[in-house]
Parts: sequence; C-alpha cells; structure tokens
Amino acid sequence: MAKAMVYIQSGGPTSVINTSLYGAVKEAQKHPEISHIYGSLNGIDGLLNDKIIDLGKEDPETIELLKQTPGAVLGTTRHKLPKDLHHEEYARIIETLKKHNIGYVFVNGGNDSMDTCYKLSLLAKELNMDLKVMGVPKTVDNDLAETDHSNGFGSAAKYVINVTREIIADAQSYDRYKGYIIEVMGRNAGWLTAATDLLPEEARPDLIYLPENKFDTEKFVEKFAEIYEKKGLCVVAISEGIDFERDETNVKIDSFGHKQLGGAASDLGKLINSRLGISVRAIELSLPQRAFSFLTSKVDSDEAEACGREAVKHAVEGMTGHMIAIKRVSDAPYKVEYRPVDISKIANVERKVPGYMMKNDSHMDKSFRAYCEPLIKGELDIKMENGIIKTAVLKKVRV
Amino acid sequence: MAKAMVYIQSGGPTSVINTSLYGAVKEAQKHPEISHIYGSLNGIDGLLNDKIIDLGKEDPETIELLKQTPGAVLGTTRHKLPKDLHHEEYARIIETLKKHNIGYVFVNGGNDSMDTCYKLSLLAKELNMDLKVMGVPKTVDNDLAETDHSNGFGSAAKYVINVTREIIADAQSYDRYKGYIIEVMGRNAGWLTAATDLLPEEARPDLIYLPENKFDTEKFVEKFAEIYEKKGLCVVAISEGIDFERDETNVKIDSFGHKQLGGAASDLGKLINSRLGISVRAIELSLPQRAFSFLTSKVDSDEAEACGREAVKHAVEGMTGHMIAIKRVSDAPYKVEYRPVDISKIANVERKVPGYMMKNDSHMDKSFRAYCEPLIKGELDIKMENGIIKTAVLKKVRV
Repeated sequence: MAKAMVYIQSGGPTSVINTSLYGAVKEAQKHPEISHIYGSLNGIDGLLNDKIIDLGKEDPETIELLKQTPGAVLGTTRHKLPKDLHHEEYARIIETLKKHNIGYVFVNGGNDSMDTCYKLSLLAKELNMDLKVMGVPKTVDNDLAETDHSNGFGSAAKYVINVTREIIADAQSYDRYKGYIIEVMGRNAGWLTAATDLLPEEARPDLIYLPENKFDTEKFVEKFAEIYEKKGLCVVAISEGIDFERDETNVKIDSFGHKQLGGAASDLGKLINSRLGISVRAIELSLPQRAFSFLTSKVDSDEAEACGREAVKHAVEGMTGHMIAIKRVSDAPYKVEYRPVDISKIANVERKVPGYMMKNDSHMDKSFRAYCEPLIKGELDIKMENGIIKTAVLKKVRV
Repeated sequence: MAKAMVYIQSGGPTSVINTSLYGAVKEAQKHPEISHIYGSLNGIDGLLNDKIIDLGKEDPETIELLKQTPGAVLGTTRHKLPKDLHHEEYARIIETLKKHNIGYVFVNGGNDSMDTCYKLSLLAKELNMDLKVMGVPKTVDNDLAETDHSNGFGSAAKYVINVTREIIADAQSYDRYKGYIIEVMGRNAGWLTAATDLLPEEARPDLIYLPENKFDTEKFVEKFAEIYEKKGLCVVAISEGIDFERDETNVKIDSFGHKQLGGAASDLGKLINSRLGISVRAIELSLPQRAFSFLTSKVDSDEAEACGREAVKHAVEGMTGHMIAIKRVSDAPYKVEYRPVDISKIANVERKVPGYMMKNDSHMDKSFRAYCEPLIKGELDIKMENGIIKTAVLKKVRV
C-alpha cells in the first residue's frame, strides 16, 4: 500500500539544500509506492507540531526554481530530539506520522541532523513501525563523516574562493597598502578556509589558519610583520573557530547570559594594529557563504540533486537508517558513486581536515587541491528577473 | 601630429572600473591622432613619479578580460593634488607628460578624482599646453553631480540587492528568529542602501536608514521592537555613514592616533541586544560591494564602456576639461545619452538622495524605483576556469 513521504530540512542552509529537495520530489513523483509528497515545516518541529505541507500542490515552475533558491524553503531548526525514545516528543511525532499515513521520512542535514535521522530510525525499529528513514548529507562545513564530501561544501568553497579573489584584487589596487583578515565559516573544521589556497599564487591569501592547528599568536604577529614588510600588504584567511586568546576585558554578556565575542578577524585585526601599528580591514564573509546562489558549483548542485534522488530510490526499495554518502572513484576524471552508509556511524561525528592535506601552517598540500578542485567546477544558469534572482516562493498548503 | 594618451584610475575600485579602461583602449585604437595608449600606475602617482606602462603591449585576450576583472588593474590612489598650480608636483607631472609626448589624459574616478582632472585641465590652460584632459565618471556611491548616475553604481546596487535577498532567505529559514543589521557602503549618500527597497515585499528589509536623514536612536529601538514582536524577525539595512551616538567608552586609539570605531551595524546590534535582549547578527557587506564581478549589471557595464569611448572621441576632437555625464532620456524604455559636462561643476560636489525619493524614514518612494530599476538590469557572461573567475593580469611593460 502506498504511503506518504515527508521531507525535513535541518540545520544551517546551503546554496544547494533546496536542490536535494528538488531531487527527492522529482524522484518521488516516479514511484507509485509514494502516495503524497509532504514537507515538514521548520525541520523536526513540523512533525512535533503537525505543521505539514503538501508539496504536490506547488506549481512545477516553483519546484524548478528550488535549484536556485537560497535558504531552506521548508524552514529549518536546530532542535535536537531527546535521547529517551519514550519521551513525549516521540509520541507527538508518531501521532503526526500516523495522521498523515507517512511511511517515508527524509532528513537533509549535517551531523546534528543525522542524529535526528538516527533517532527516528531507532524509534521505527523499536516500535516495529512501517517507516523508512533516510538521510541526505548537507553542510557547508564539510565535516560529515563517512562521505567524501557534503552537499553544499563545493558551492560555499567556490564562493569563498572567488570572493577572496575579488577582495585581493581590490586590496592590490592601492598604493598605500594595509592588512586584510578574512573570516571564513568553520568552528572546528577548516575545509572552507583551506579552499582559498586554490587561488593562483599572485592572488591568494599570504597566510591561512585552520582550527585544526594550534594558533600561535606570537608567530602570527611575526609572520604578518615579515610579509607586510616585504610586500606592503598581507592578506590572511582564518576560520571563525581558530583558537586564540582574546582580550575579554570588553566582552559583553547578553540577556541570555551568553558571551558576546567579537568576530575573530576583527579581534586579530585589533591585535595587529596595536602590536604593529598597521591598519587592518577585517572582513567576515558571513551568511552569503552558505546562501549565495550565483556561485553555486554545478558539480555540487548535481550531486545534491542525486543524493535526494538516491535517498528516495533506496527508501522505496525498503532501506532505512542510512545516509546517502558520496564515494569518490577518481579525481581526474572526477567520478563519484552514491553509497548508503549506516547512519549510526555518522550522527554526531565530526570530520576535520587531515594533517596530510596541510603543507605547513599557512598553505595546503597538493593533495588538498586534488581533493577540492573538482568540487567547485561548473556554473548554473541562474534565472533573473529585472536584475534580481528569481526564487521559489512556496504556497505551503497545510495538510 | 599624433600624441600619446595616458589613462588614470583613481579612488575606490568598482566592478566596472576596468570596463571603462577597456572602452577607452578599444576606442583609442581606432584614432590615428593617438600614437600610444599608456596607463598611469597608481593614479596620479604614475605621472608624478614616471610610472607609465604601455597598454599596447598587452595581449588582446587580457584587454577583453578587463570587462570582468575586479579591482583597478592600473592601481589607484587617494592622493589629492595641491591647490597651487606652481607646486613642484605639477612640474613633475609636466616632465612625465613631455617625456612620453602625452597629449591626452583621461581620469576615471569620483568627485575627488574629478578634482585631479579639473586641476590638470587648469594647468594645461594656464601653461597653454597641447593637452586634452577628460573625465570618466566612476563611483559605487553614485554621488557624482551633473550625471544621472555613475558607472559602478548599478553593479554595486545589484550586488547589494541580491545579497540582501539571500541573507533574508537564510534568516527566514529559522524558527527561532533574531535581528539582522546589514551595513551598506555610503558615508554621506544612501543610494546603495536605498536600492535594497527594490526587493519584493516578502524579502526586503523591514527598515532602511540613509545618512541623508537624521538617525533617531530611540525611534529606531521602538520600531525594531514593534516589528520583531509582530514578525519574530527584523531585518535592517543601514548606510555605513548613518549618524548616531556611539558608545565611545570602548573606542581604541591606534598608533596613528585615529579612533578605531567598530562598524555601525555591529554597534547598533549591540545597542538592540542590550536594550531589547534580542540577539542580532551584524553583517557588513564590505569590499565585495564594489569588487564583485558576478553580479555586474549589463547596463552598467555597457555604459562604463561607452563613457570610456566617449571621453576618447571628444578628446581627439579637441575637447578638454569635461567629464562624460550620463543623461537619462527616458525610464521606460530606458534610454540614455552621453554628454560632456564642464568639470568645474563636478569636482568636489556630492550628490545625495533627494528627499522626494524617500517615502518615509524606512522605505523609498516609487520615483526611486523608477530611477534605480533600469540600472541593475542584464547579466554578463563571466568566463571561468575550473570554477574560478578569469581575470586580466597585466604585463605592465614600463615606458
């Protein structure tokens, strides 16, 4: 008997998060095993509070536009499900699943979201429910385990690389130079920052710092001074998560009791300024890294769509508790295969940049280039209207 | 007798600054009156210190790539020439002009740079030199007088509009909302910030603040609270130059004695957080606004090229002391004419957003939309290589 599917977007958006949704929807339309294609609003919250929409009611043009729409169109969440499978939250989820006769759940997200996926698959197993739960990988941080890379990383890397190229071109225009510190996403894994090393030598950062390495402030100041002295300009790319001693005397505490730290680039800029008297421009690449559609990598987009499709294919064949991983077959020509991996191996595990991919503390090894280069290739043909990107605006018809 | 021309880039780069250079070079190649096509390195500094390159020695492919190359390829400067035309700096400039038999000078820049252009034309007149000096308009700030708009503004506006769209899509993905303050370039003129009002209603900033209006902090906090209460989200776009009382207790003084102010967005974010307890993400759009090639407006690019060409055409016909202004003939269909304007009317004058283009202190009037919309239209076909933008790298053969 055919059952409905529900699709969940979870965690931070990427440029291709909606492309995986597109892939899943298009694939599901081909399978009579799937009676309805639903979306859960704001991640797992949609199942918890019965906020389910019928994606079958959306116009085909809207579905096509998903491939160039930033943000997570279904809405997302950072809510984490409780450990105890007897917690009342699971009862609410089960209620929603039953109410809409849902037999397939797809969770598109990073390591935290794969935890949601894992718990739902355990729940289904424990209760012997007729429910297939599959994961679709997604994170600009590229820190998901058991997959060569994650959907969203290639496009974010492409943005970071090209925007760094533009910033350096701008910086090199001046006769009176200064310092530039570019802050890139990545709390614990430096994949995105590392990508800037793919730029041609005359236009790449002079120094690159990843959170994987211990940050030595004194050595940093010394190197900065040395490069500035020689070139009259020093461009640094850092991961937001690099570990250095901040001046916490000015740190404010917000009303929720959280420390309000300034950005790492801004703090390091002040440090350089006070120690070397060099004027520094701190540039936080911020949200556009994961939201910018204009530099979406075609490879990343195609793979994101494929992962959405593969998840559906395997689910209707009866698989559950797996995430679609990308297995690289070769670098040149670049070739991948899609392989389901047991979700328990992925949930909550973080994959960092391995030591052998770093040449030294300021540049990457050629193995990183071989790894990263294929992932940023190819461009999308973005549809515009009067100079503004066309995006999918869902009708969100509730069921 | 044919004479050489020299081209000067001055002030901050724009996405199309090198497109005007492209136009001037291509046009100059057609005129036998021009014996050599030179570039001055780092703005007027090239004439002051005899740093002149022969653009005729560059590959045609490099010249073509100028149209998608960020930064100012000749290098730029913020140096301002002295008032006194008998100052030794002018003697050095004259020496360089004579040495290379230069009869045509083109200055591509904003109001400060048009001052350079003006002074050079006065110098030529006073000394009865055979020298034609022409200005080419350029500034993302759009604050040049006597022209409908400036080359570079349309592309910067297009970037600001689209990246704001992406940021808002990302912001709308979350269930737990917060505040966003987007800081846009513009010290005294709010043209770029105003452009965000062109976004469709569901995806445009809730509040827009330009430096043209007095900023009322109390009213801002009140409005922010009201919108946040209603929508669970509040997105604000501000010009970097809006005038508000900053908390200066934490201001640091750098080694040059300059105050190190934080960004306006960051400071306003802290204000909202401390007053309303709402978490705010401050996003400074920073250098990509003027350096990003991927959202270059075709209209802007074509006009930048045309202004470069027109300057050359008029110069060889004997004109001097003028800047090529853009005169709008009609909004729909959008049509412009290029008209030389006496440079003395332009140098050092700032054009702000006129009051009638503002509907109220948070949105723009429809007259602004009619003005701005045509300027962001059309896309370039950007050439990429392995996912990275191809840019012109000049050989810079000195003469």
